[in-house]
Amino acid sequence: MLSRSDRGLAYGDGLFETLRVGADGRVPLWPRHRARMLAGARRLAIPLAAGELERALAAQLRDHGAEAGVVKLVLTRGSGGRGYLPPARPEPTLFGQWFPLTAEPRDHLLHGVEIGLCDTVLPDDPFAGLKHLNRLPQVAARAEAGRHGWREGLLLDRHRCPVEATSMNLFAVFGDLLWTPSLERAGVAGVARDWLLDIARDQGWRVEVRARPLSHLRRADGIFLTNSIVGLLPVRKLAQWAWPMNPHILRWQQLWRAQFND
Amino acid sequence: MLSRSDRGLAYGDGLFETLRVGADGRVPLWPRHRARMLAGARRLAIPLAAGELERALAAQLRDHGAEAGVVKLVLTRGSGGRGYLPPARPEPTLFGQWFPLTAEPRDHLLHGVEIGLCDTVLPDDPFAGLKHLNRLPQVAARAEAGRHGWREGLLLDRHRCPVEATSMNLFAVFGDLLWTPSLERAGVAGVARDWLLDIARDQGWRVEVRARPLSHLRRADGIFLTNSIVGLLPVRKLAQWAWPMNPHILRWQQLWRAQFND
Repeated sequence: MLSRSDRGLAYGDGLFETLRVGADGRVPLWPRHRARMLAGARRLAIPLAAGELERALAAQLRDHGAEAGVVKLVLTRGSGGRGYLPPARPEPTLFGQWFPLTAEPRDHLLHGVEIGLCDTVLPDDPFAGLKHLNRLPQVAARAEAGRHGWREGLLLDRHRCPVEATSMNLFAVFGDLLWTPSLERAGVAGVARDWLLDIARDQGWRVEVRARPLSHLRRADGIFLTNSIVGLLPVRKLAQWAWPMNPHILRWQQLWRAQFND
Repeated sequence: MLSRSDRGLAYGDGLFETLRVGADGRVPLWPRHRARMLAGARRLAIPLAAGELERALAAQLRDHGAEAGVVKLVLTRGSGGRGYLPPARPEPTLFGQWFPLTAEPRDHLLHGVEIGLCDTVLPDDPFAGLKHLNRLPQVAARAEAGRHGWREGLLLDRHRCPVEATSMNLFAVFGDLLWTPSLERAGVAGVARDWLLDIARDQGWRVEVRARPLSHLRRADGIFLTNSIVGLLPVRKLAQWAWPMNPHILRWQQLWRAQFND
């Protein structure tokens, strides 16, 4: 249970991480998750030591033994009085939650999914990149995807440039170029996204991180989404556009599985 | 206490109202507060009946008797599993909290306050107008005001047009014109703001609700802020600009006091 005066509830004044736990009890990308939450906490001026994160995760792993699942870690600025002003000496709230892992259907991973274009516009975010607790645009966009029966919904910014899906980052392959949108003004800098960018650079790919208009996607050789739960999810169809399966995406999927026993 | 899986915490998926309770147990502007939260709940598709709001407020008033104070009402979409998708049949969370009333110093009300200009830019908000639980920009802006020792901080949008203060709406008097920023793209549509707009229209003022650049404020005959806790708070100084006390602002303050026994 949580205090009703927690600032995480009152203002979304906090951060979260969603981690995949393998059946072997290992947590893929944990150092990247930890680094992101520590950086976010610094940015929001919420005191947090790396050891506290380790302990919160360890408690979940201890309670659930050798079981595959999903751990969510939530950090908030803790309780405060009424009003936006952060307390001078915050006593942060940090806790973990365990969720069952819903495996992505094999057909989705092999043949791709159909996604749609959300009407909800992703607004500029003064805390772009952070996985913070202000997520109303994502809630609205995910509700749209649900109404339409899409596996995911793509969010555009006010310039009609795609930024991300509701809970996954976006990539496209153009020849020997791997592209993903810049997240300087909005979006969550996913740890699976970071992992793939490093891999692709190491493999000698040209990597481009910048805003591109939606129309560019049409010319892509392949489109896919990433997050740390699913890994790489190919996109087969977006509205009236369709893409064939791209061999590079399948190879990165194999690399993901090999690296994380997935 | 609150469930750790409440979507109010997870995503800021909810709304709040902050009500002033007079020593006589009356709640100024209650019908406007109630209407705003009901409209917000409809907009977010959170089921809420007016009777539930009445009961949550009545419970607070019963517990605290004939005592002046502040009641905060919080509504969320309730608990949900992991993921942004709203549950098909949400069971909303609704509760009230009681806070002591901190009276605004008489000197502030009579002679105005000094405010500052926040560096935090108020982003466009797909849910502009609503008093929702995604308030990180306000937290950042209020922290700025705190560091500088300002009574309030003024927030500009990306076009450098003033929108509101961190917890108060903005007004200016230009001759026989009463101006307040449009809140179509960002900001909270305050109930004290609504009250004053109705009063001013009834009094025959020309009323203008639109975006104006910051530079226009310099030429104003008077600047003030409003919310339902403080009423009307004159602004004496903003950065290098200063305004004399404006008799119209003082008259609206008297009207506020007369109407609400304040």
